[in-house]
Amino acid sequence: MNFDAIFDAQLQALRDEGNYRVFAELERRCGAFPAARSYIADGPDEVTVWCSNDYLGMGQHPQVIAAMKAAIDDCGAGAGGTRNISGTNHHHLLLEAEIADLHGKEAALLFTSGYVSNWAALSTLGARLPGAVILSDAMNHASMIEGIRHSRARKVIWRHNDPEDLDRRLSELPPEAPKIVAFESVYSMDGDICPMAEIVEVAEAHGAMTYLDEVHAVGLYGPRGGGISEREGLARRITLIEGTLGKAYGVVGGYISGSAALCDFVRSFASGFIFTTALPPAVAAAARVSIAHLKRSGLERARQRAAVRRLRAGLDAHGIPHLDNDSHIVPVMIKDPVKCRMLADILMRDWGIYVQPINYPTVPKGTERLRFTPSPLHGPAEIDRLVEALNALWRQCALSRAVA
Amino acid sequence: MNFDAIFDAQLQALRDEGNYRVFAELERRCGAFPAARSYIADGPDEVTVWCSNDYLGMGQHPQVIAAMKAAIDDCGAGAGGTRNISGTNHHHLLLEAEIADLHGKEAALLFTSGYVSNWAALSTLGARLPGAVILSDAMNHASMIEGIRHSRARKVIWRHNDPEDLDRRLSELPPEAPKIVAFESVYSMDGDICPMAEIVEVAEAHGAMTYLDEVHAVGLYGPRGGGISEREGLARRITLIEGTLGKAYGVVGGYISGSAALCDFVRSFASGFIFTTALPPAVAAAARVSIAHLKRSGLERARQRAAVRRLRAGLDAHGIPHLDNDSHIVPVMIKDPVKCRMLADILMRDWGIYVQPINYPTVPKGTERLRFTPSPLHGPAEIDRLVEALNALWRQCALSRAVA
Ligand SMILES: Cc1ncc(COP(=O)(O)O)c(C=O)c1O
Ligand SMILES: Cc1ncc(COP(=O)(O)O)c(C=O)c1O
Repeated sequence: MNFDAIFDAQLQALRDEGNYRVFAELERRCGAFPAARSYIADGPDEVTVWCSNDYLGMGQHPQVIAAMKAAIDDCGAGAGGTRNISGTNHHHLLLEAEIADLHGKEAALLFTSGYVSNWAALSTLGARLPGAVILSDAMNHASMIEGIRHSRARKVIWRHNDPEDLDRRLSELPPEAPKIVAFESVYSMDGDICPMAEIVEVAEAHGAMTYLDEVHAVGLYGPRGGGISEREGLARRITLIEGTLGKAYGVVGGYISGSAALCDFVRSFASGFIFTTALPPAVAAAARVSIAHLKRSGLERARQRAAVRRLRAGLDAHGIPHLDNDSHIVPVMIKDPVKCRMLADILMRDWGIYVQPINYPTVPKGTERLRFTPSPLHGPAEIDRLVEALNALWRQCALSRAVA
Repeated sequence: MNFDAIFDAQLQALRDEGNYRVFAELERRCGAFPAARSYIADGPDEVTVWCSNDYLGMGQHPQVIAAMKAAIDDCGAGAGGTRNISGTNHHHLLLEAEIADLHGKEAALLFTSGYVSNWAALSTLGARLPGAVILSDAMNHASMIEGIRHSRARKVIWRHNDPEDLDRRLSELPPEAPKIVAFESVYSMDGDICPMAEIVEVAEAHGAMTYLDEVHAVGLYGPRGGGISEREGLARRITLIEGTLGKAYGVVGGYISGSAALCDFVRSFASGFIFTTALPPAVAAAARVSIAHLKRSGLERARQRAAVRRLRAGLDAHGIPHLDNDSHIVPVMIKDPVKCRMLADILMRDWGIYVQPINYPTVPKGTERLRFTPSPLHGPAEIDRLVEALNALWRQCALSRAVA
């Protein structure tokens, strides 16, 4: 059997529909974010990154860098084992305590990534709570969808950000079934924020557990960076808060936070937690410093918000249509995969502006977009230059403008 | 619904059967491996780690440490995005090229862990090859089992390391079905090595793809550390080689290696690859230096083998029963979870020797063991002291000895 031929055929289908992905090879320059060296052929050697999820530039924060290097000097490169077999390092426990404190919870549990934390926690809860039903927001992230699928628990999809629909669907379930309401606070591709109070209200009325993904909100919202659940004063009422250390915190890794029993349960039964090498101690040390810094400092958040405002105002001034939302994410809708890639290519080649075209399967077909994530490190001149570039593109390519 | 009560009940069941896990909190000391600071109550402040999977101590290798710190200075702490959205760093591509060269393959693809590489690659292959059947060795690792489960492809389990059974089962399948034979080279808990040539022979005869997990062999076997497939001259005939950067290479991360079409296929379709933050560039840089070093240097492997030989000889001299195998893993069978933990506790408390009791679900119930992994950094005096401690324990606890 010619396996490569099968692979090639499926890859060709991707190419034909314009969804074949070419990764931009970069080297971010520590101390010079958002600037990066570029290894992309036919492009400038240095580019400005406009689509990073290192939302606050914490990946180059001197304290984070110093903590990471110090822990390497102390403990070496890797953890040397799974959490159970020699891989638990003091730094992991310090980080778990820092996270539990961030969300005002009894405990937290670290995973190698946010993806794995969602997949492992949801698959374990769904599989080990007899008769469980998982109620999943229609726009939930792939990692949650795969975790639910893996659990083989019954799954009910409710309309995106619609507490009334959730209420209806919960009402149809047997009262004795354990129910898990899974949703996100900030949805990363549209940047919309869930009506958390209403969702919690509905879940509580039905005795359901709430499972909240705050991946695109931790570090960014709430007075200490505890996410939308902190900002809304709802953290206490959420059963499980899931987050990442790889976006606003600038490092890598994921976690869940909740009651001691909940975290101990997932720790004890989740295959994706148990059977894998622990994160390097240095990663844990860096992430802890990043979280601790953003608990105390609101400066990065304030500067990010100013950058977001300036970009939105610039786009509006030129009638460049972007999704309106209450978050830090600025999606400019293109709605065609080939056009989306072409625009990104021109931005890169002619302007040294790097924004990845977002196509299927990251977003539904027909909703392709350029997704901009202004950070505290994007200065006014850089923002204005992006607006100028987009305006020129809109003129050149006769793209439609927003009607005032 | 009182979820915590449900969690507590299941945790209590674990405790009752002696399978509740308490992680040993340590801090490995870079430059002093296998010594580690211990934070464990009622124990010494410093212990010797005897169960690390940093098999060669590469986690403290000066070149690895230096590369990791230099990349942090250059690129910052994290990657800042998924591989597709701003997260692909020059260091990732250098590492992928280094891995492809290690296995003599066209390409390689990085994942956040070995667990994720198995889970994502097998679930993608199983789900996207229409009518695929996965033939899985009975002792395969949890990450492969979960990947196969997730794919929902038909699964056939063949008797552990038994090519004849594999042949029989392949014969029963429709000739036109795409078949994937999934197995490991070194099985981590028993330390036995598969009869690779026979397995490859059988798979080829049936036109099946071979999927080989070399997680406990890369860096350790073969003249350049390419694993058992390199040692046996079989790498070319294996379709896909999977490995980790978190064990012999001392860092963290996982990969697959194979044809360009295969790697591009998994890159393009695997949810667990696509929807997650990329590994920190510094992790990639450190892993690359570790692989490159172990391609050139056989010293670490030779010293490890000497340490393994010395430990086995010492155990034999005192009749302490251990599983015989051809690898670097020395399992001393206890066959009872409570006794296994008790022995480990005494070793820690009285001798400062840390070996994690290996209980269910890592091994089947009734096969609980102490699993020792001698490294090039365990000197003769340390090895002899371990033997002395075990001998004293065997005397104290009247444990059975091997009959000569
Ligand atoms: C909503 C959401 N949850 C989870 C994840 C996974 O987090 P991580 O990148 O840490 O794997 C992502 C993105 O990667 C995400 O967008
Ligand atoms: C056979 C096998 N495959 C895969 C893995 C997962 O590798 P990683 O620790 O890099 O996740 C492990 C152990 O952790 C293993 O023992």
